[in-house]
Amino acid sequence: MKKNPMNYTLLCDFYELTMANGYFQTGMADQICYFDVFFRIVPDGGGFAIAAGLEQVIDYVEHLRFDDEDIDYLRGKGCFAEDFLTYLKGFRFTGDIWAVPEGTPIFPGEPILTVRAPAIEAQFIETFLLLTLNHQSLIATKSNRIVRAADGRPVSEFGSRRAQGSDGAILGARASYIAGCTGTACTLADQMYGSPAGGTMAHSWVQMFPDEYNAFKTYCELYPHAATLLVDTYNVLKSGVPNAIRAFKEVLLPRGITGCAIRLDSGDLTYLSRKARKMLDAAGLTECKIVASNSLDEYIIRDLLLQGAKIDSFGVGERLITSKSEPVFGGVYKLAAVEDRDGSVIPKIKISENAAKITNPHFKKVYRIFENESGKAIADLITVYDEVVDESQPLELFDPEATWKRKIVTDFTAVELLVPIFRRGEKVYQSPSITEMRSYCAAQIDLQWDEVKRFENPHNYYVDLSQKLWDIKQDLLKRAGR
Amino acid sequence: MKKNPMNYTLLCDFYELTMANGYFQTGMADQICYFDVFFRIVPDGGGFAIAAGLEQVIDYVEHLRFDDEDIDYLRGKGCFAEDFLTYLKGFRFTGDIWAVPEGTPIFPGEPILTVRAPAIEAQFIETFLLLTLNHQSLIATKSNRIVRAADGRPVSEFGSRRAQGSDGAILGARASYIAGCTGTACTLADQMYGSPAGGTMAHSWVQMFPDEYNAFKTYCELYPHAATLLVDTYNVLKSGVPNAIRAFKEVLLPRGITGCAIRLDSGDLTYLSRKARKMLDAAGLTECKIVASNSLDEYIIRDLLLQGAKIDSFGVGERLITSKSEPVFGGVYKLAAVEDRDGSVIPKIKISENAAKITNPHFKKVYRIFENESGKAIADLITVYDEVVDESQPLELFDPEATWKRKIVTDFTAVELLVPIFRRGEKVYQSPSITEMRSYCAAQIDLQWDEVKRFENPHNYYVDLSQKLWDIKQDLLKRAGR
Repeated sequence: MKKNPMNYTLLCDFYELTMANGYFQTGMADQICYFDVFFRIVPDGGGFAIAAGLEQVIDYVEHLRFDDEDIDYLRGKGCFAEDFLTYLKGFRFTGDIWAVPEGTPIFPGEPILTVRAPAIEAQFIETFLLLTLNHQSLIATKSNRIVRAADGRPVSEFGSRRAQGSDGAILGARASYIAGCTGTACTLADQMYGSPAGGTMAHSWVQMFPDEYNAFKTYCELYPHAATLLVDTYNVLKSGVPNAIRAFKEVLLPRGITGCAIRLDSGDLTYLSRKARKMLDAAGLTECKIVASNSLDEYIIRDLLLQGAKIDSFGVGERLITSKSEPVFGGVYKLAAVEDRDGSVIPKIKISENAAKITNPHFKKVYRIFENESGKAIADLITVYDEVVDESQPLELFDPEATWKRKIVTDFTAVELLVPIFRRGEKVYQSPSITEMRSYCAAQIDLQWDEVKRFENPHNYYVDLSQKLWDIKQDLLKRAGR
Repeated sequence: MKKNPMNYTLLCDFYELTMANGYFQTGMADQICYFDVFFRIVPDGGGFAIAAGLEQVIDYVEHLRFDDEDIDYLRGKGCFAEDFLTYLKGFRFTGDIWAVPEGTPIFPGEPILTVRAPAIEAQFIETFLLLTLNHQSLIATKSNRIVRAADGRPVSEFGSRRAQGSDGAILGARASYIAGCTGTACTLADQMYGSPAGGTMAHSWVQMFPDEYNAFKTYCELYPHAATLLVDTYNVLKSGVPNAIRAFKEVLLPRGITGCAIRLDSGDLTYLSRKARKMLDAAGLTECKIVASNSLDEYIIRDLLLQGAKIDSFGVGERLITSKSEPVFGGVYKLAAVEDRDGSVIPKIKISENAAKITNPHFKKVYRIFENESGKAIADLITVYDEVVDESQPLELFDPEATWKRKIVTDFTAVELLVPIFRRGEKVYQSPSITEMRSYCAAQIDLQWDEVKRFENPHNYYVDLSQKLWDIKQDLLKRAGR
């Protein structure tokens, strides 16, 4: 696997550095802090998001270092004291991180990553953590919607040329694979992250030959076992499909090859795919697949299939790789607690006039509660770090907004979502392979009810607080209101 | 300036490689081709886009090489012949490239970059060129709209944490600076590309202190000449502004420092800024600036200013760095011509049932026509490569769709937009410094009429074809229709 040798330490908001210098100069550098990453709204009005990007966060934290070039650059800014710059030379992350594994369905308001570290370290990593988790979770979430719309048909990621920068393309392809795409057009995403790359021809290939038939015939001769012919350069039904049929019959069939495909990249995909299917079948090419692309997303794919389009697989570009309908994943990084000198954890809250923006204070755990009968997830429960959910006892869940809505759960399994990633600066977690993440993601989504998976107006999945955490939060709110 | 050492050669759609192998195996590798990059629709319904990203394209083309790791990876795919892999080891770009300089206002349908090269080379660079030009032009275009809405007030780019990957953040910050932002929060964008980085504090800084006043006082002591205090952690008007005033008065005024600022990051920015302005003025802090942030874009900024908000500068995040309202710039890469063995240029056209998707054939030039009286740009004219616009003669322009709309122009200056970048594989262009690009961009926008700069329903700026090019296009269309 190819590695990116770039040092991304300075991919931070400048205020992380002014604050770090401030903590350093005022003796607050060693104050232990807890920060949570969480998000507030599921993109596209969906029922859940998919966590992705942790492996790149781990890589960043592990390799965090200010090289001489960085120190010189910072010195040139003229606002940092020399003793702080000397401190930065030896800067390493020495804290703890917990996070949900990549591919996990996640819900608004719950921590998906928690950092416990001295103030400077905990603060400094904010920008890169958010950037990485926000980007990849956004693309994973969108890709998973598109994959589910395709209802078992393969979906390939085709969007590099419209991505927002190279990592937008490469890591976007990675996230889309974790979330269920079968591959990508992006070669470097395959080389670096193992999302299988594939692709066949552009319109220019067809235009380079004296005629369409010769372009197709040549391609079939070159790649008899991977011949997907792009049939819309001139006219799909009048020339593209007939020329493809001729090339398949003349080049592939004599070699006993029946696996082949055509690709539609424009026009009305329902109409064209149905007509093309009939023509292919009439020619005996019943095993020839039809691939469709052209500004697809989950809504168009769902409509095409409802209308009886004869499409076997999809290539999805710009609307996936930028999550066009909702291109921002609003993950935030908020202080949740600090530690006293004696090690006791003091919860902190960020209040706001907007109730939805009030944070959940404290060092916390997140449990996913599965009912044993169906195996399905029924709620997530956020607790204080020192609470343990006892599966042998009935568990009372309640809506943290409408506390009279209560429910007693028995016969359940409680699974902790946040797993240890770093312990005192040492990495204690090995990311699974990308194919393992992809299988894990698919399996976790199977544990969600269909009602939660609807594209619009999904059932609201509850993320509840334990009574203890709820009480602490209310107490902090009351004190802040004074 | 820090460089990214990553080799991006394989940041290509896989089909570029299958086609390249195809051209290689069938003796078409040396066929000289012309490809154009152009776009069809201005994002957000605006009157023009801003070209950006050329410097990164140049860097890519100059350093294009398949290293051993790349060759091994490609061999492992099992579909490339060994002689092709050997060829790739020595692969370099040997062709010509022309492009519009970064910061130039650009219009739909005109080439913004033209490649002339042997088939494999011209085809291979497609993905990276499009990715880079699409991304940076998108962000430059959006940023310029936001900067124009701010009407002379500084706009800082704040969006790294919501960007789509690291290049989304870093190169997005670069593009936003070219387009008129005054700086960025992204430290690495400053270090790598010279977009000035700045920033002060997060809410967590305030939360880390026993109280807001002490957080502010400490910050003023640390950075007396760059104290921008974030006043919305608890309550802007009841605590934030009063505490800021107290800190400014106690720490800055005794040192004779009157330059300072507060930042509003939530709530109703019109109301809060007007109230805060009054409080600051009443305290004698008339030089204290008010910075506003929180999900801003050109529309909100325009409305805030129309409502009399007392805001001196803006920090703009996610809606700029992802171009949220329109996150895709649809630049395409289309074959425009090939060369005969005798060197004559044979125009090629890509037809489509959708008239807007029909390409302009041939190897072309683009002239921007300025009327001498006002100095303003009045139209762009696309000609065949061997045409010269003679400024001493009247020039007849006509609408290529409605050819009866004609206009004779005299007393004009015609400026060629596409400048030579590579000549036979050698770089013949030196990118200006980023500050030069920024000044050039501002100056070029001044040469556009206000009617073209409207955010909605701008005046349609004409991109016309010369009579010769129009005739060739019609002839190719007629022949294709047969």
